[in-house]
Amino acid sequence: MYRTHNCGELRSKDNNIEVTLSGWVQKSRNKGFMIWIDLRDRYGVTQLIFDEKRSSKDLFEKAKSLGREFVIQVKGIVIERASINPNIDTGEIEILVSELTILNESITPPFTIEENTDGGEELRMKYRYLDIRRTSIKEKLIFRHKVSSEIRNYLNNLNFVDVETPYLIKSTPEGARDFVVPSRMSQGEFYALPQSPQTFKQLLMVGGIDRYYQIVKCFRDEDLRADRQPEFTQIDCEMSFVNQEDVLTTFEGLIKHLLKEIKGISIDEFPRMTYDQAMSKYGCDKPDIRFAMELIDLNDVSKHKDFNVFNSSELVIGIRIEKGNTLTRKQIDNYTNWVKRPQVGAKGLIYLRCNDDGTYKSSVDKFFDQDDLKKWADKTKAESGDLVFILSGKIAEVRAQMSALRLEIAENLGLRNSEEFAPLWVTDFPLLEWDKESKQFHAMHHPFTSPKIDELDLLEKSPEKVKANAYDLVLNGNEIGGGSIRIHDKKIQSLMFNHLGFTEKEASQQFGFLMNAFEYGAPPHGGIALGLDRLVALLDGQESIKEYIAFPKNNSGKDIMIDAPSKIDDSQLNELGIKLNKK
Amino acid sequence: MYRTHNCGELRSKDNNIEVTLSGWVQKSRNKGFMIWIDLRDRYGVTQLIFDEKRSSKDLFEKAKSLGREFVIQVKGIVIERASINPNIDTGEIEILVSELTILNESITPPFTIEENTDGGEELRMKYRYLDIRRTSIKEKLIFRHKVSSEIRNYLNNLNFVDVETPYLIKSTPEGARDFVVPSRMSQGEFYALPQSPQTFKQLLMVGGIDRYYQIVKCFRDEDLRADRQPEFTQIDCEMSFVNQEDVLTTFEGLIKHLLKEIKGISIDEFPRMTYDQAMSKYGCDKPDIRFAMELIDLNDVSKHKDFNVFNSSELVIGIRIEKGNTLTRKQIDNYTNWVKRPQVGAKGLIYLRCNDDGTYKSSVDKFFDQDDLKKWADKTKAESGDLVFILSGKIAEVRAQMSALRLEIAENLGLRNSEEFAPLWVTDFPLLEWDKESKQFHAMHHPFTSPKIDELDLLEKSPEKVKANAYDLVLNGNEIGGGSIRIHDKKIQSLMFNHLGFTEKEASQQFGFLMNAFEYGAPPHGGIALGLDRLVALLDGQESIKEYIAFPKNNSGKDIMIDAPSKIDDSQLNELGIKLNKK
Repeated sequence: MYRTHNCGELRSKDNNIEVTLSGWVQKSRNKGFMIWIDLRDRYGVTQLIFDEKRSSKDLFEKAKSLGREFVIQVKGIVIERASINPNIDTGEIEILVSELTILNESITPPFTIEENTDGGEELRMKYRYLDIRRTSIKEKLIFRHKVSSEIRNYLNNLNFVDVETPYLIKSTPEGARDFVVPSRMSQGEFYALPQSPQTFKQLLMVGGIDRYYQIVKCFRDEDLRADRQPEFTQIDCEMSFVNQEDVLTTFEGLIKHLLKEIKGISIDEFPRMTYDQAMSKYGCDKPDIRFAMELIDLNDVSKHKDFNVFNSSELVIGIRIEKGNTLTRKQIDNYTNWVKRPQVGAKGLIYLRCNDDGTYKSSVDKFFDQDDLKKWADKTKAESGDLVFILSGKIAEVRAQMSALRLEIAENLGLRNSEEFAPLWVTDFPLLEWDKESKQFHAMHHPFTSPKIDELDLLEKSPEKVKANAYDLVLNGNEIGGGSIRIHDKKIQSLMFNHLGFTEKEASQQFGFLMNAFEYGAPPHGGIALGLDRLVALLDGQESIKEYIAFPKNNSGKDIMIDAPSKIDDSQLNELGIKLNKK
Repeated sequence: MYRTHNCGELRSKDNNIEVTLSGWVQKSRNKGFMIWIDLRDRYGVTQLIFDEKRSSKDLFEKAKSLGREFVIQVKGIVIERASINPNIDTGEIEILVSELTILNESITPPFTIEENTDGGEELRMKYRYLDIRRTSIKEKLIFRHKVSSEIRNYLNNLNFVDVETPYLIKSTPEGARDFVVPSRMSQGEFYALPQSPQTFKQLLMVGGIDRYYQIVKCFRDEDLRADRQPEFTQIDCEMSFVNQEDVLTTFEGLIKHLLKEIKGISIDEFPRMTYDQAMSKYGCDKPDIRFAMELIDLNDVSKHKDFNVFNSSELVIGIRIEKGNTLTRKQIDNYTNWVKRPQVGAKGLIYLRCNDDGTYKSSVDKFFDQDDLKKWADKTKAESGDLVFILSGKIAEVRAQMSALRLEIAENLGLRNSEEFAPLWVTDFPLLEWDKESKQFHAMHHPFTSPKIDELDLLEKSPEKVKANAYDLVLNGNEIGGGSIRIHDKKIQSLMFNHLGFTEKEASQQFGFLMNAFEYGAPPHGGIALGLDRLVALLDGQESIKEYIAFPKNNSGKDIMIDAPSKIDDSQLNELGIKLNKK
């Protein structure tokens, strides 16, 4: 037996018992006549003591030889510490060691296994197995486990069935993003890895499973943006005989359950807003509502003067920054430069200072008088001491720019408190969105999303106006889930494929099995998929998902620890019936 | 709201309340003046009633139009049934329908959605979503969910952490069986799908995670034998600072927990036998011990006469069939033919009848007298009325033949009761096995398996004699799991690679990251992996795994429902930097 206790559980009540512990040498302090060693395992750290008087000479010498990250086993007596360490759970006691076995040696690690490690990201990724030894990383992986366990608890209690869907499936129309897998047994043919189990979960509803979930890996071969992974984990759910309200209630319940069980936070009913409301109030469809700073339409108080920038704009938007008049000229200039960066793309930024004496100062004083400026202040509810920022331009662009600025300001003002949780539902997404490249409408959510039935007649004349029974779950400015009520009527499904530019043949080739299934009594159904990686990071108060993934890939989709992807033998290529293109 | 209740929950206590139900039309009986409809959902079946007197004319006509598998919603009053149906949970009541909405129509299904369906396997696979509507299939999927939930409960309680390991990994030395995934971003390079997360779980142990599990899909591209799937689910586990006894106790506990929670069966300590014992007593390393019929070595009582078949054999084995003397000559001939089939490969089968009068009759009476035959009977513990079957030949072959015969007889005698559970551990597997094709030793378990340290000195001279700290968990004649204590010492690991015919370069190329990791203080560790598909089927008293998989592939690795694998576009191939070999 390697241990009687772990390194996190001994307390002063255990004094005088003999214990066996195993773990890693975290740290060794040699005072000449006395050696203290911090012994670490997953559960904590326990101090070991060797001393010239009480330990045998051999033992003392052996203890001297221990290096960082050696794996050792010790037997000894629990004794009270001379000076209690209140910073660790086992700080009341130490182990007076009588036997020491070196289970494994270690060469010097490439970085220190401590909270403030000296290792850069690249190095820590290459030696991820050592990085995981650091408490913060290890705790993140355990935190993830806790979250997924609670998700299962909640859904199991509601009669959801965890059904495993296949990973070797058929390439779909969004095929360009599919990872494919050549088949050896059917040469020239390929499986695809699922971007999501979408069609399978709908088939399970056709099959009468009624409530399905799965915590499942999905794959998307796209050029990676920062903090995206080619493989990611989805909490995938689907329900039958439900309308939108049923789905929203169920998964609002899930997030409440997680906040309660994991964070001890009770949250009331989630706010809801339509996509249109979100776009006009926050300029984006995943607003961070931990703070206000709503976008205020200033069109009717800003276009009456000889200021062409506003007059030629579709939309003039202001936002109020409470007590923002303390911002210096230089700080305002910095924001101006910030919005002019190509990533944001504004042409400029107009400010309005609300002075303590009730006067106003603006960068467009030349065009607007104090009465005009007062109207802006009134509309944005700005008071003395506040600052208003104003942007103008085309509707879509100026909203996006103001949304970005809003988040940047909030970040700088410390309004994005990671321990505060502000979930909301955004509903009534447009059914279709225009794709400039392919010059046709694409499904905004996916082609199985049900349109609002009473808007179906718009589909011919103003397809962009048709709304869908589609919804997103947003948390602190992040889309953490999205779903929809699906089409269960094959006539409406054909209509949709038609509008999405699929010929009947293409639709049947790519979705034939689903359309077939719909011939045999598909129930009304709908669902949602949540991104586990992101959800876990947010619940833990973090923005980056990478450290919540045990073995993540880098931004080029590579695993630098195992060196994947890598070359394979010609014989293997040959067996698969493929060869490489000559460069 | 689509329903106030599901189709399985109404009882006579609900009489007179108004309910809304949704579901599928299972069956319709039209008596002219009265129509009964069985409405089905996941939870059960409820009888609906329409009648000329009590229903409106429109409603009655609409009810007539309902076909099988139509999806409907009804509102109505719960009433007592004239004649109670004790066969279904809702048999006390029926619904007098007042409103009927057809939610979706159905064309006639290709087979009946009933327990005794008229659909053949191929057809049911093509329309798997309809097959899942059948209660037995649906219940199998729900049963699987229940088993995996209980596995999680048990392991979570023991502080195991569910860690997700990557699916896009590096091709391994058993590479020939890897499914590979071409990388678009690194053209000419490939990911591989994991055959198991073996190396990652060992890295997690190096990382100090201490106790890991995952219920995870694994992939193996091998020519499919019956009842094998290219993707399958593994319960993958690993523990640090453990010896073999710790692992066995922990996972014996898991199986006991499942038998208790799922089947209500309590089982004592599992029997254990070494690989050598299993091979000599049962002729195979996964014995079915629900029944005895052990293999008895008859060498010392069968080689003293002029019967060359025995004299030239390495091994003569007998098994006793209790009360087997009732077998007719024809039945014995059938067994003789059975063992002579190429799949078994015996040259013949010798019998010994133990007559009621104490005499013996054998097919080799010519060579052996009554005294000889009595010795065979005594050795096999055969009594009056029993039958003994005897096979002889080379040790490995005759054991395999007798093991097959043993199972066949037990099957015919009804000794393989699927509701009886006889788990056991088989331990001390050989470390290496000789591979005739490559003419070298292969790791029997895998190259990270620890040899018995006190047998290391045999490695040079008699490598085949070295035993490993490797164990299998066997249930009812099936290997449901296997594992080992791993090598954590890099010197022993190098030694192993050496004996497995890896050059240092090959070893470092293929396992470099693991060997590197072992430089930094790997803890002693070990684990096990269990096949979930098989375990679930066995717990449910079934032999075939296919129906416990929601969307299985056929024996050619094809999903005939979605038609995968399939061709992909040239443009996609081009983007991946590969092309097909010309035929």
